[in-house]
Amino acid sequence: MPELPSAAFDQLFRQARTYNAFSGEVSDETLHRLHELVKWGPTTANTCPARFVFVRSAQAKARLEPALDEGNRAKTMAAPCTVIVAHDLAFFEKSPVLFPHTDAKSWFDTKPKDELATIALRNGSLQGGYLLMAARALGLDCGPMSGFDNAKVDAEFFAGTRIRSNFLVNLGKGDPASIFARSPRLGFDEACRIE
Amino acid sequence: MPELPSAAFDQLFRQARTYNAFSGEVSDETLHRLHELVKWGPTTANTCPARFVFVRSAQAKARLEPALDEGNRAKTMAAPCTVIVAHDLAFFEKSPVLFPHTDAKSWFDTKPKDELATIALRNGSLQGGYLLMAARALGLDCGPMSGFDNAKVDAEFFAGTRIRSNFLVNLGKGDPASIFARSPRLGFDEACRIE
Repeated sequence: MPELPSAAFDQLFRQARTYNAFSGEVSDETLHRLHELVKWGPTTANTCPARFVFVRSAQAKARLEPALDEGNRAKTMAAPCTVIVAHDLAFFEKSPVLFPHTDAKSWFDTKPKDELATIALRNGSLQGGYLLMAARALGLDCGPMSGFDNAKVDAEFFAGTRIRSNFLVNLGKGDPASIFARSPRLGFDEACRIE
Repeated sequence: MPELPSAAFDQLFRQARTYNAFSGEVSDETLHRLHELVKWGPTTANTCPARFVFVRSAQAKARLEPALDEGNRAKTMAAPCTVIVAHDLAFFEKSPVLFPHTDAKSWFDTKPKDELATIALRNGSLQGGYLLMAARALGLDCGPMSGFDNAKVDAEFFAGTRIRSNFLVNLGKGDPASIFARSPRLGFDEACRIE
């Protein structure tokens, strides 16, 4: 495969920023297109544990509000859409459909709970990364956050299930006035080594 | 922002596959370019907990081999490069550099170990997702895997540190004969809801 044009590197990585204020609307069609991309990303044995709640109505936002850290409250209430990136701890119940050529369910359903939680968090977070990249590819700006009360979100949005919240993402058209100066990153030799 | 051209959606998501055999070489320059993209992806308070070991030499591959599940052994030994995607549980030691405008280190260094492990796994996995997307954007094919003994990898590659392995990724030019038929994915209504 050839590499993507440089403008794509800018849009996905180099110029993409975490915004704190958004305008615009995020339509049902856009959310469906977003999922149509995200769903193809790889996960362990195609378990696809991520579950996404797109919080868009005033009523749903009001249910989310009490769980938000003070610093994330106003911007999240004002954003066109807030995604609850979550994962299903009972993800293996879907394995007969998602990995039909063998009994993958049996690889998971006897594992201890903490191992299942690690697998769900690893793969659900990977899918959260795909969501951020897919949103940027579609021309949306993102504001990912982990400053909120996961237990409150779980009680409000996932009661009676084994679905657990992971992190949140505000979506929309980012306001360039709302971004902070770019923070430093680790150099290659701090984050990587070649052996 | 406009959306990326449709060919980019194919390359990153729709046509991208998990390969089981690879050819080609992955140069130092390519690995540096990969990190130059990955490093910009967002993480909680810019903690950037992921650490990447690019296992390329025969000697390093031989150290990795005993940790691999049988089904992942031959393909990993033959791949041009295998990335150990890992994360530093002491990630907050870098906060004074990475988040210099406030004392972010104090947000983390008093947290219980299991919370720190969750934060590192969440954000390290997100960065692993960025790595897969950046590799595909650069025209590389990927073979991500979690079938290996994490403790063995940690003992061999991260002894005496608080760095822990997360998952592995083979990199190179994928052999189309090595991919399986595409497995099903969850539909929008199974994985998502709009509220």
